[in-house]
Amino acid sequence: MKALAIDLGGTHATCAVVRDGEILASRVIDLDCTNGLASALPLFSSALREAAQNAGVETHTCDGLALSFCGLVDARTGRVVSTNKKYDDAVGIDLPAWSCKEFGLPFRIENDARMALLGEWYAGGGRGYDNIVMFTLGTGIGGAAMVEGRLLRGKHFQAGCLGGHFPVLFTGRKCTCGNVGCAEAEASGWAIPEVARATPGFESSTLAAGEVTFKAVFQAAAAGDPVAVTVRDRCLHVWAANSVAAIHAYDPELIIFGGGVMKSADVILPYVERFVHEHAWTPWGKVAVRSAELANNAALLGAVPLLTEKFGSC
Amino acid sequence: MKALAIDLGGTHATCAVVRDGEILASRVIDLDCTNGLASALPLFSSALREAAQNAGVETHTCDGLALSFCGLVDARTGRVVSTNKKYDDAVGIDLPAWSCKEFGLPFRIENDARMALLGEWYAGGGRGYDNIVMFTLGTGIGGAAMVEGRLLRGKHFQAGCLGGHFPVLFTGRKCTCGNVGCAEAEASGWAIPEVARATPGFESSTLAAGEVTFKAVFQAAAAGDPVAVTVRDRCLHVWAANSVAAIHAYDPELIIFGGGVMKSADVILPYVERFVHEHAWTPWGKVAVRSAELANNAALLGAVPLLTEKFGSC
Repeated sequence: MKALAIDLGGTHATCAVVRDGEILASRVIDLDCTNGLASALPLFSSALREAAQNAGVETHTCDGLALSFCGLVDARTGRVVSTNKKYDDAVGIDLPAWSCKEFGLPFRIENDARMALLGEWYAGGGRGYDNIVMFTLGTGIGGAAMVEGRLLRGKHFQAGCLGGHFPVLFTGRKCTCGNVGCAEAEASGWAIPEVARATPGFESSTLAAGEVTFKAVFQAAAAGDPVAVTVRDRCLHVWAANSVAAIHAYDPELIIFGGGVMKSADVILPYVERFVHEHAWTPWGKVAVRSAELANNAALLGAVPLLTEKFGSC
Repeated sequence: MKALAIDLGGTHATCAVVRDGEILASRVIDLDCTNGLASALPLFSSALREAAQNAGVETHTCDGLALSFCGLVDARTGRVVSTNKKYDDAVGIDLPAWSCKEFGLPFRIENDARMALLGEWYAGGGRGYDNIVMFTLGTGIGGAAMVEGRLLRGKHFQAGCLGGHFPVLFTGRKCTCGNVGCAEAEASGWAIPEVARATPGFESSTLAAGEVTFKAVFQAAAAGDPVAVTVRDRCLHVWAANSVAAIHAYDPELIIFGGGVMKSADVILPYVERFVHEHAWTPWGKVAVRSAELANNAALLGAVPLLTEKFGSC
């Protein structure tokens, strides 16, 4: 099966032609999400045509067009439901009509975290499992859940994809989502500078000299900086406790972690795995904990499973 | 539609004949769960026959037999999967065969927390909603989730029904489930004596004179005991934060609270509702928060919807 696929982020879009679990050709376009989506559509068209040409594929021979979107979407109707200051005009655009007019192809859309999970399930670290939770550790913490081979979506398309917003410390920090003590508020890219500065001894730590990022914290911790060790270990604890929350919520066999910080998978995975095996209530056995395998290609490789999905009740 | 229904708890079983959302007749049997389930089956048979006679119903005119069980079950095959020191022999019993032989009726089984949600959805506080989370506040905290009109079950039948075991305080108390800081470990009937004793000033509180129960805490708090107010408000905070976790996990329109402590619904519901409306990320609107309406009848009234359920993929 062949598909046109677009992975749309805040600063750029990747337009590709995929065949089953393989990317045949792709082209990246720089974008400014504050300019909206309508003005980007002609750029998508030409980039997809260019990618198709490079792949030696005629677009009309594809089975559909799939868009991975950085916001809440209605996968059933193909419409954007809610944006988060990115491509705010998208809610009013009839994307299925655009795809039909431009390429004569059926259109499907899904949230980017769910698309990444679909891709990993179909062609990456999730192969062989039908019950998966995926967390993407980045500026925020993205989440997605698959139950019995189907994405969990819910009535307002929010189920499963707010895995970074389980409150793991109800007495904790304020989150951007309006809640308090979310995993994201305690251990995400945007939170870690605050967490570090609140750690006793920060001023005399090597972290105080530069920007506090996951990379800086993991490097300084590896070099023995005690404040960095404290901050890193607290992040690990939060991610692990949040994994237990997700296991108790969704009953998965596998948890996949993605995001740039997984360059430190050698530190993160053993910690989370040990914690989960000790703390999660899973009388049936042990939940596997793995790294994502597809990096930036995951959402594009979610195109084929999304286009072939039969929509049911959840 | 008519059904035979059994609601099996640790110390007794209620055997009933139900018609749609109505209990026509019922009979309660005292049981000792350590004696196992096999020895209770003949008692179920005679109690069901007696209830049917009182209701003027011939058992063979019923559409099936539904059992609400206090453990993990496989609703698809009708077998008990895992017990928790209650009726431990149940895993090996072919209950569908028993129902067929005894009454000639199709058999369905479900976990008691899910049955209570089914009953409330069909005939109680959940009517009109298809996306519901239910919490039962008792010795432990029970949970169940319905997504788009279907019970969430998951691969190992654990999804949705561990809502008392989201860690809301990852630095908190040890839970009976093996995890740390679960809502149940911070604010359930079994935890509240420990929580109270750990509250500064406990020894001089009126609570120190007797058994520390929800009832004692809510009464003493209403009478102005400052330690009781602290303990009560901490429970409210935990239940509310845990409700946000469930909203972010399952995307419900409605949260239903059941359990004996809901005699204090006038204190609990406004607090949880206000907290949830301030803290949950629900751009589509506001989650409703309500009391259960059916009390001990909920699980029995789940019989008809369980028997008519078409099993799908989640």
